[in-house]
Amino acid sequence: MIRKKQVLVIGDSGDFEEKNKVAYEVGKFIAKNGWVLITGGRDGVMDWATKGSYDEGGLSVAITPFDRLDLATPYASIVIPTGIGFARNYVNVLSADVVVVIGGGAGTLSEIAYAWQFNKPIIACSFVEGWSRELAGKKVDYREREPVIEAKNLQEVFNNLLKILAK
Amino acid sequence: MIRKKQVLVIGDSGDFEEKNKVAYEVGKFIAKNGWVLITGGRDGVMDWATKGSYDEGGLSVAITPFDRLDLATPYASIVIPTGIGFARNYVNVLSADVVVVIGGGAGTLSEIAYAWQFNKPIIACSFVEGWSRELAGKKVDYREREPVIEAKNLQEVFNNLLKILAK
Amino acid sequence: MIRKKQVLVIGDSGDFEEKNKVAYEVGKFIAKNGWVLITGGRDGVMDWATKGSYDEGGLSVAITPFDRLDLATPYASIVIPTGIGFARNYVNVLSADVVVVIGGGAGTLSEIAYAWQFNKPIIACSFVEGWSRELAGKKVDYREREPVIEAKNLQEVFNNLLKILAK
Amino acid sequence: MIRKKQVLVIGDSGDFEEKNKVAYEVGKFIAKNGWVLITGGRDGVMDWATKGSYDEGGLSVAITPFDRLDLATPYASIVIPTGIGFARNYVNVLSADVVVVIGGGAGTLSEIAYAWQFNKPIIACSFVEGWSRELAGKKVDYREREPVIEAKNLQEVFNNLLKILAK
Repeated sequence: MIRKKQVLVIGDSGDFEEKNKVAYEVGKFIAKNGWVLITGGRDGVMDWATKGSYDEGGLSVAITPFDRLDLATPYASIVIPTGIGFARNYVNVLSADVVVVIGGGAGTLSEIAYAWQFNKPIIACSFVEGWSRELAGKKVDYREREPVIEAKNLQEVFNNLLKILAK
Repeated sequence: MIRKKQVLVIGDSGDFEEKNKVAYEVGKFIAKNGWVLITGGRDGVMDWATKGSYDEGGLSVAITPFDRLDLATPYASIVIPTGIGFARNYVNVLSADVVVVIGGGAGTLSEIAYAWQFNKPIIACSFVEGWSRELAGKKVDYREREPVIEAKNLQEVFNNLLKILAK
Repeated sequence: MIRKKQVLVIGDSGDFEEKNKVAYEVGKFIAKNGWVLITGGRDGVMDWATKGSYDEGGLSVAITPFDRLDLATPYASIVIPTGIGFARNYVNVLSADVVVVIGGGAGTLSEIAYAWQFNKPIIACSFVEGWSRELAGKKVDYREREPVIEAKNLQEVFNNLLKILAK
Repeated sequence: MIRKKQVLVIGDSGDFEEKNKVAYEVGKFIAKNGWVLITGGRDGVMDWATKGSYDEGGLSVAITPFDRLDLATPYASIVIPTGIGFARNYVNVLSADVVVVIGGGAGTLSEIAYAWQFNKPIIACSFVEGWSRELAGKKVDYREREPVIEAKNLQEVFNNLLKILAK
C-alpha cells in the first residue's frame, strides 16, 4: 500500500487549554510516526493537533464543513472544504484508519457514533472531560465489536495507536 | 406558513416488536394532527411509523441513504433518495421541527447529536431500550439549552408534540 | 405503489419573466395530474413552479442547499433543508421520476449532468434560453440512452410528462 | 500559507489511451512543481494522473464516492472516501485552486458546472474528445467571468498552470 495510515483526531472546537495541549502532543506523535493526520479543520482540538503535526514536519488534512479553501486551520498541509456543512463529520470518519477522541460535545458525539457504525477503532481519552470520557471502555450499541478503547493518559493513546497501526 | 409542521421519528432499524408498535402509534398520531412525518425510510421504527401515518391517511417523507427511488418503506407518500449514505442523518435532522426518538443505536445517536447541535426539540422515549432511554432528561453537552425531553409513555410523547407544535 | 410520481423542475434562479411563467404553468399541470413537484426551493423557476402547484392545490417539496427550514420558497408543502450546499443538486435529481428543464445556467447544468448519469428522463424546453435549449434533442455523452427530449412549447412539455408518467 | 496549491484533474473514468497518457503527464508536471494533485480517485484519467504524480514522488489525494478506504486508485498518497456518492463531485471542485479537464462525459460535466459556479479557473484540453473540447474557450453561463481556458496541447496546460499558480 502506497498511502500512509490516516489518523482522525476529533474533539472540542472550543478553547480548552488542557485538551488542546493533549491534541498538540497527539498531532506531534502522529507526525513522528509518519502517519497522516485528519481533522475537521476548525478551532480547538482540530487546530492544535494540526499545529502539532506541522511542528514535527508531518502531513495533515483539514476536512471542513465550509466551501472555501481559506477557512481552515492555517497549519494544514491540505484543505478539503467539503461544502456539505456538518455532514462532513461522516466524511471525516470514513477517512480514518483509527480515531482518537479528546473530549468533545455533540459534534464529536456524531463522529463517535459514525465511527462505531463503520467499525473504526476508537481510542477515547478518559483523562479529559466530554464524550471521550463518557464512552471510554463502553460499547456504543448492541453491535458485536470491541468496546471503545480507554486511554487513561497520553502514553496510552500512543501505545494504542502503535498497536493498531502496526498491524 | 403554508407548509405543515414536520416531525422526524428516529430509532432502531431492527425488528424490535415493542419499539415498532410505539412507532406505529406515533405515526398515526402525527397523521391525525395533520403534521408531516419524516423518517430515514428504512426498516424498523422508520417503516412502522410510516405505516402508522399511511393507515391514518397522513403525509410522510422517506429520506433514505440510497440512490434509488424504490429502496424505501413502501408506505411513504414521498421518497427522497439522498444518495449520500448515512450523511443523510444530517438532512433528516435539519428537516425536523421536532424529533421523536424511539430506542436507537449508533445511527440514531448521530441524529440525536445533530439535533442537539441545531437546537431542535427532542422528545426521547425512556420506556424503551436504547439511546432514547440513555439521554432522556439529559443535556447532550455544555450548550445552553433545555435538556432532552423525557417521555415516560406514549401519552407523554403525544402531549409534548402538542405542546411544541401548537406554538 | 403508494407514493405519487415525482417531477423535478429545474432552471434559472434569476428573475426571467418568460421562464418563470413557463415554470408556473408546469407547476400547475403537475398538481392537476396529482404528481408531486420537486424543486431546489429557491427563487425564479423553483419558486414559480411551486407557486403554480400551490395555486392548483398540489403537493410540492423544496429541497434546499441551506440548513434552515425558513429559507425556501413560501409556497412549498414540505421543506427539506439539506444543509449540504449545492451538493443538494444530486439529491434533487435522485428524487425525480422525470426532470423538466426550463432554461438554466451552471447550477442547472450540473443537475442535467447528474440526471443523464442516473438515466432519468429529461424534458428540455428549447423555447427558452439557457442549457435547456443547448441540450434539447442531444445526448450528453457516449452512454447508450435516449437523447434529452426536446419540448418546443408548453404543450410538448405536458404531452411528454403524460407519456412518461402514464407508464 | 503553509498548504501547497491544489490542482484538481478531472475527465473520463473509461479506458481511453490518449486521455490517460495526457493525464499521466499532467500528474507528473503537478508533482514536479510541488503542487498537490486532487482527483476523484477512480479509473481512467483519475488513476493515470495519480500514477504520474506518484512516479514523480508527488503528493496526491483521491476523493472517492465510496465509503471504503480500499476502493481507490492504489497510487494515491491519501484517500478520502466521502461516502456521499457522486455528490463528491462538489467536494472535489471546492478543493481546487485550479481545475484541469481532460475529455469527460456527464460526471465531468457536473464538475465543470460546479467549478464555474464557484469561480475556479478551468483549463480545458481541446485536443482530446469530450466536454473539455466542447467548452474550451467558452462561457458556461451568463455570469461575469473569464471563459474556460483552452489548452490546445500539453504545453499549454503546463503554461496555464504555471501562470495561474505562480500568483
